[in-house]
Amino acid sequence: MFREGEWVLIRYEEKRYLRRLDPSGSLNVRREVLRFRDLIGKPEGIRVGRFEVFRPTLEEIILLGFSRKTQIVYPKDAFYIAFKLGVDRNSKVLEFGTGSGALCAVLSVIAGEVHTYEVVEEFHRIAKENLSRFGLGGNVKFHLGDFLEAEVPENTFDAVFVDVKDPVPYLEKVHGVLKVGGVAGFLLPTTNQVSALLRNFGGKFGGVEVLEILVRYYKTVPERLRPEDTMVGHTAYLTFCRKVGS
Amino acid sequence: MFREGEWVLIRYEEKRYLRRLDPSGSLNVRREVLRFRDLIGKPEGIRVGRFEVFRPTLEEIILLGFSRKTQIVYPKDAFYIAFKLGVDRNSKVLEFGTGSGALCAVLSVIAGEVHTYEVVEEFHRIAKENLSRFGLGGNVKFHLGDFLEAEVPENTFDAVFVDVKDPVPYLEKVHGVLKVGGVAGFLLPTTNQVSALLRNFGGKFGGVEVLEILVRYYKTVPERLRPEDTMVGHTAYLTFCRKVGS
Amino acid sequence: MFREGEWVLIRYEEKRYLRRLDPSGSLNVRREVLRFRDLIGKPEGIRVGRFEVFRPTLEEIILLGFSRKTQIVYPKDAFYIAFKLGVDRNSKVLEFGTGSGALCAVLSVIAGEVHTYEVVEEFHRIAKENLSRFGLGGNVKFHLGDFLEAEVPENTFDAVFVDVKDPVPYLEKVHGVLKVGGVAGFLLPTTNQVSALLRNFGGKFGGVEVLEILVRYYKTVPERLRPEDTMVGHTAYLTFCRKVGS
Amino acid sequence: MFREGEWVLIRYEEKRYLRRLDPSGSLNVRREVLRFRDLIGKPEGIRVGRFEVFRPTLEEIILLGFSRKTQIVYPKDAFYIAFKLGVDRNSKVLEFGTGSGALCAVLSVIAGEVHTYEVVEEFHRIAKENLSRFGLGGNVKFHLGDFLEAEVPENTFDAVFVDVKDPVPYLEKVHGVLKVGGVAGFLLPTTNQVSALLRNFGGKFGGVEVLEILVRYYKTVPERLRPEDTMVGHTAYLTFCRKVGS
Repeated sequence: MFREGEWVLIRYEEKRYLRRLDPSGSLNVRREVLRFRDLIGKPEGIRVGRFEVFRPTLEEIILLGFSRKTQIVYPKDAFYIAFKLGVDRNSKVLEFGTGSGALCAVLSVIAGEVHTYEVVEEFHRIAKENLSRFGLGGNVKFHLGDFLEAEVPENTFDAVFVDVKDPVPYLEKVHGVLKVGGVAGFLLPTTNQVSALLRNFGGKFGGVEVLEILVRYYKTVPERLRPEDTMVGHTAYLTFCRKVGS
Repeated sequence: MFREGEWVLIRYEEKRYLRRLDPSGSLNVRREVLRFRDLIGKPEGIRVGRFEVFRPTLEEIILLGFSRKTQIVYPKDAFYIAFKLGVDRNSKVLEFGTGSGALCAVLSVIAGEVHTYEVVEEFHRIAKENLSRFGLGGNVKFHLGDFLEAEVPENTFDAVFVDVKDPVPYLEKVHGVLKVGGVAGFLLPTTNQVSALLRNFGGKFGGVEVLEILVRYYKTVPERLRPEDTMVGHTAYLTFCRKVGS
Repeated sequence: MFREGEWVLIRYEEKRYLRRLDPSGSLNVRREVLRFRDLIGKPEGIRVGRFEVFRPTLEEIILLGFSRKTQIVYPKDAFYIAFKLGVDRNSKVLEFGTGSGALCAVLSVIAGEVHTYEVVEEFHRIAKENLSRFGLGGNVKFHLGDFLEAEVPENTFDAVFVDVKDPVPYLEKVHGVLKVGGVAGFLLPTTNQVSALLRNFGGKFGGVEVLEILVRYYKTVPERLRPEDTMVGHTAYLTFCRKVGS
Repeated sequence: MFREGEWVLIRYEEKRYLRRLDPSGSLNVRREVLRFRDLIGKPEGIRVGRFEVFRPTLEEIILLGFSRKTQIVYPKDAFYIAFKLGVDRNSKVLEFGTGSGALCAVLSVIAGEVHTYEVVEEFHRIAKENLSRFGLGGNVKFHLGDFLEAEVPENTFDAVFVDVKDPVPYLEKVHGVLKVGGVAGFLLPTTNQVSALLRNFGGKFGGVEVLEILVRYYKTVPERLRPEDTMVGHTAYLTFCRKVGS
């Protein structure tokens, strides 16, 4: 049953809204009105007029509910990263920078323990709020500060994900805190950054892969099935590699 | 440390091999030989000549280690499906047909409990072997038989994934066993199948999305960064929707 | 030299404008003003402040200069179609419906003679105006009316391109007016239309191909090379086949 | 009618062959035999058993008939380039290096006059043979030698296309021989090359665009419409710009 104060995902044809169920609230789309007090106490998955109301999925929470002061890691990328890092519920994972917390939220669903570092105090605070507002991240430890200066023992993490402008200065430290054989991943928007990263792997990382993920959505009219007119053309290149022991 | 009998992923330049560490075994690539007895007792993430040896990731296990009598669900798709179904470690998930067990293996990493049905006895058996051989699927219940004939109470599953040629006859039962608001997903290779599915959703499912996922790999030479010459052009269309209550 | 009344393509950073050089005209972008009287008599390819002014290419004319009452055939598709039809300056080509004249303009550059049919009088008139306004289409014969009712001898055209909602009723006539071995092409936005077309080819057409063309643009900053954030996700599926003689 | 000695395109299901009609010749596919003497004197577009025989299109000639000592410019790219260069039958176009002559063949269909330069004597000779063997390139002037050393007056060409490993040393000369406002295009396989090119345009070229073209083929079974399993993932990045006058 929907409860007062809960976050809900409201669909109206191709539109999607994430709203908190304030009993005095309502949503008005194309002259049709959905009153939130009518939803409270009703079962999830309800249809009212052309509105459909669900509990939001993780993807909807990230895309529609997270406050953003930074570019987020898109769900299409985050979902792939989480598995590609080889993470499971026994894994201890590191990621930095936290940014808005999107990847952090995804990793926390699958990993045992997530440590995240963020230099900018505002981003650190917003990411924490983003996750806690939606009841996510119970297994996440948010650190304020530059991971370069963090005191972390060698061979601590099963996987590390790096989302900073210039990952090169972090490579040696990432290599150190990774368990041997562990996976490191990197998100970089430009080809120049990827080249610079690859140039600096030296012999310390093996099994290198660079890839990008494209999602193509289709219009859902059965008699007129076709891709959407526009699509996301680029978010970032993903690079993965594994720590090679000496 | 690598142990005798363990499965390892061996990379040699762009080639990848999954092998069991039999002490008398070896791998011979372009006249370079890797003797397995030299690996046993060595730490993971070792480099020997041009060989790199790691514990295999889930993706590598599925792509290189699973016996296949059926088309598998590719990791790029399975990773996305797992999160898109809204699955976490509290979720009880249903999928059918089991096929070679690829999606099953991915779901089992993230979900609390996975139930899978397969009609063909041989596939059922191979899938079970595929997962057990790699120590996966402790939380998976393998059922032999057609899900249509399974006796499952209403509102049992948080999510359902359907990978059969014609999902239409299963729609009513899928709707029944899903919790209200739960996510159903479908994998279908052809556009005709997608159209047929959409045509039959009726009013029972909402929030419909159809999409496909493309992964584009790059050559990892820093001074010659460019996509690979060929790529996987198609695996399947993914359709997701949510049970709407009455 | 730019002449009064001529059409010019004006670029200002990532923006593009197609304008007629009226001496009293000007273009105002982000508080910078380009006065058209300053361009008249100047050589093509001039840079004024951040403005760059060129004679428009065919692609720019179609995308920015053509009046549209219909969806146009995009240059990326039209360029491919023109060559795929096997057209050269000895070819006599048929296309229908004319629509806004975009494909017609492209075909006229490469073919000897283009015949185009359009049922809707307004489209027919606008297409003629679109081409004549930019000095294109001297070798195009515009026909008002449904090609189904046109009196055209058998084996007349080297190639035929069909851009109508339902091409199936036209197939027999298209086959008739094509020379044996000639190429027929079809533009269809949805998968359902493509299936219907393929279903109706019967044995009369061979060498069937179905494809789509995606163009991915990159940001042109050398130190931050990366694809644009969004791209055109779909325009249409292109089908090509060849008349098989009996 | 097919003539003895003519080149024909033979399709057999998804396979394609380009063969010369030698009366003693035949083609054997999956135990079905096509005797060439049975084709001579028959009309184009004939079906014999599961074989279909046509005059080859330009695309088929390039892909199946050209001898290659170099990577060719693929038709998908060449078709786009030809129009993007703004070429028509009044245009005088320059391209180098000639390579196997694929782009040259495409440009010659649409331009008035094509000049092509090639440093390697063997490539130069093969390209000439490739075009002449198929009756193409009557308006092409093949030059043996490095374009850098060619004596060409300023403002000679309407468009220039550059397909060499390092185009940077050629930029000043390309700028010189182009008419003001003329289009220059560049084909480069790697992102590093594109960055280097963009870095060196200086203020001499405007209207810069970088893009790549992807063609996705579909299986042509109407009841099982779906993309092919694999596709060409990358050929090259295309860069276009226009000469800005001083």
